Amino acid sequence: MASQPISILITGANRGLGLEMVEQILQASQPVKQLFACCRDPDGPQAEALRTLAKKHADVVSIVRLDASDLRSIRRATQRVGAALPPGGLNLLINNAAVLPRGGLQTTSPEDMQSALHTNVLGPANIIKEFLPLLRAAVRAGGRAGMSCRQAAVVNISAFLGSFPSIEETYDFLPAISYRMSKAALNMLTLCASTELKRDGILVAALHPGWVRTDMGTQEADIDARESVEGMLDVVFSLNEKDTGTFLNYKGKVIGW
Amino acid sequence: MASQPISILITGANRGLGLEMVEQILQASQPVKQLFACCRDPDGPQAEALRTLAKKHADVVSIVRLDASDLRSIRRATQRVGAALPPGGLNLLINNAAVLPRGGLQTTSPEDMQSALHTNVLGPANIIKEFLPLLRAAVRAGGRAGMSCRQAAVVNISAFLGSFPSIEETYDFLPAISYRMSKAALNMLTLCASTELKRDGILVAALHPGWVRTDMGTQEADIDARESVEGMLDVVFSLNEKDTGTFLNYKGKVIGW
Ligand SMILES: NC(=O)c1ccc[n+]([C@@H]2O[C@H](COP(=O)([O-])OP(=O)(O)OC[C@H]3O[C@@H](n4cnc5c(N)ncnc54)[C@H](OP(=O)(O)O)[C@@H]3O)[C@@H](O)[C@H]2O)c1
Ligand SMILES: NC(=O)c1ccc[n+]([C@@H]2O[C@H](COP(=O)([O-])OP(=O)(O)OC[C@H]3O[C@@H](n4cnc5c(N)ncnc54)[C@H](OP(=O)(O)O)[C@@H]3O)[C@@H](O)[C@H]2O)c1
Repeated sequence: MASQPISILITGANRGLGLEMVEQILQASQPVKQLFACCRDPDGPQAEALRTLAKKHADVVSIVRLDASDLRSIRRATQRVGAALPPGGLNLLINNAAVLPRGGLQTTSPEDMQSALHTNVLGPANIIKEFLPLLRAAVRAGGRAGMSCRQAAVVNISAFLGSFPSIEETYDFLPAISYRMSKAALNMLTLCASTELKRDGILVAALHPGWVRTDMGTQEADIDARESVEGMLDVVFSLNEKDTGTFLNYKGKVIGW
Repeated sequence: MASQPISILITGANRGLGLEMVEQILQASQPVKQLFACCRDPDGPQAEALRTLAKKHADVVSIVRLDASDLRSIRRATQRVGAALPPGGLNLLINNAAVLPRGGLQTTSPEDMQSALHTNVLGPANIIKEFLPLLRAAVRAGGRAGMSCRQAAVVNISAFLGSFPSIEETYDFLPAISYRMSKAALNMLTLCASTELKRDGILVAALHPGWVRTDMGTQEADIDARESVEGMLDVVFSLNEKDTGTFLNYKGKVIGW
């Protein structure tokens, strides 16, 4: 049974899949009460579409400045969100922001290598840790048995490219070694955090959006953002305790780590 | 068939498994010609045993300053090693240095999280990349078909704790979330680099030393450093092209990522 969360936070919500998630969540028949749409430059040109959306849905959407690669920025965002939330806490945290350096071992600069690990790995790790009190508050407020994103859940947007079985068939086409390393580490974070947070009733899962036509996915990709996000939100809203610690694609199929 | 390399470089060679590798390599019946024993503080108290060894085998051992978490230090080490090597290049690079923060998501500081990724992931990635020209030189000089550490090989010392199947049975006992994330990323680096460097004839594999009584492994561990390193060197000296891109334990058994 699909169960709608009351409050959601999404990182990297100003374009690509993050922005599409905000749009579809706002169009849902049962919309959420509070949607924290995070991005690293809320006033910049890259956030214009998000600003327009937020103006139209000012009662639901708050744009929050959050740079996933900067711990102080994460902590400031936590405080802002905590102050804006009712005691019901945060039901659903979606770690979506990421960068994709495309090179292999020999063609990735040390700076890109570091940036992939900082944005795609340390970012989500610090974000989950800092938002834990708000997720815990949601579990207490929810007061039901079982796990779901109506209680408290973390969804890490990962990638098939970060799975070990993918390398043989995809490496020559797109090496992206630093991205793959970062998503493997993110997958490990997902599995470890799901184990650690089980006793708190907080669900943690990783999701692969498919190969999607965004700036990152390029126009060569298989599906458009609408199809990917429709699938992902269906999957997310249906997650239950059986799914914690799994890696699913946008159709709900399990992917091997 | 075991095949002895002519030149070897080991990081974190001043104590624990790294130091034991240096000792056993020097005791071998067919000793190597050049052994670069790297550590981050060659003049400090932690390197005394290594200094003693190096004095005794001054014709073979060079102590090289290398801090795996510092790109400039890696580049300086590459230059020093390059200048000291004959045109035969570097046959075997062993990424052994690592740190182990023991906490879980809630008890690991952001600093420890970052240090695990910098030392255990960015370190080996930068080291492989910087030493590639010397590994390539060894392939050219070797001039044989097939892969082995007599030609050119990279061995990344990883850990069973960094494998996805290990989490269920080991997480409660030792969370070490940042370490697990780092070793999962190191394993992905191993698999990707092995794919990329196949055409260059450079073998890349990951090795689990067992649970070993060192500062990191603690005195509770299963085996001593001698047994672990005897096993690992047997495995390393027997690696061939079938083993590139695999994750093996110190007995040569394949471990699932
Ligand atoms: N598209 C695909 O085919 C595909 C496939 C597999 C997985 N994924 C995953 O899906 C997620 C979304 O990808 P996408 O296709 O929407 O990518 P995208 O179009 O490139 O958008 C990336 C988003 O992440 C944000 N971001 C990057 N670095 C950030 C930082 N340090 N702090 C905060 N935000 C940051 C960007 O913000 P700015 O505008 O400020 O740069 C942007 O909003 C990612 O996790 C990606 O790895 C995508
Ligand atoms: N022991 C086990 O049970 C076990 C099990 C699985 C895997 N492993 C792996 O085996 C390898 C060796 O472990 P060990 O048991 O010998 O650990 P250890 O006794 O703690 O020794 C660690 C070594 O790494 C060095 N190191 C740490 N950070 C460094 C840096 N930034 N730059 C250069 N060197 C650095 C240390 O040098 P300093 O003296 O300067 O600190 C030391 O030489 C590691 O990769 C570890 O993950 C060990």
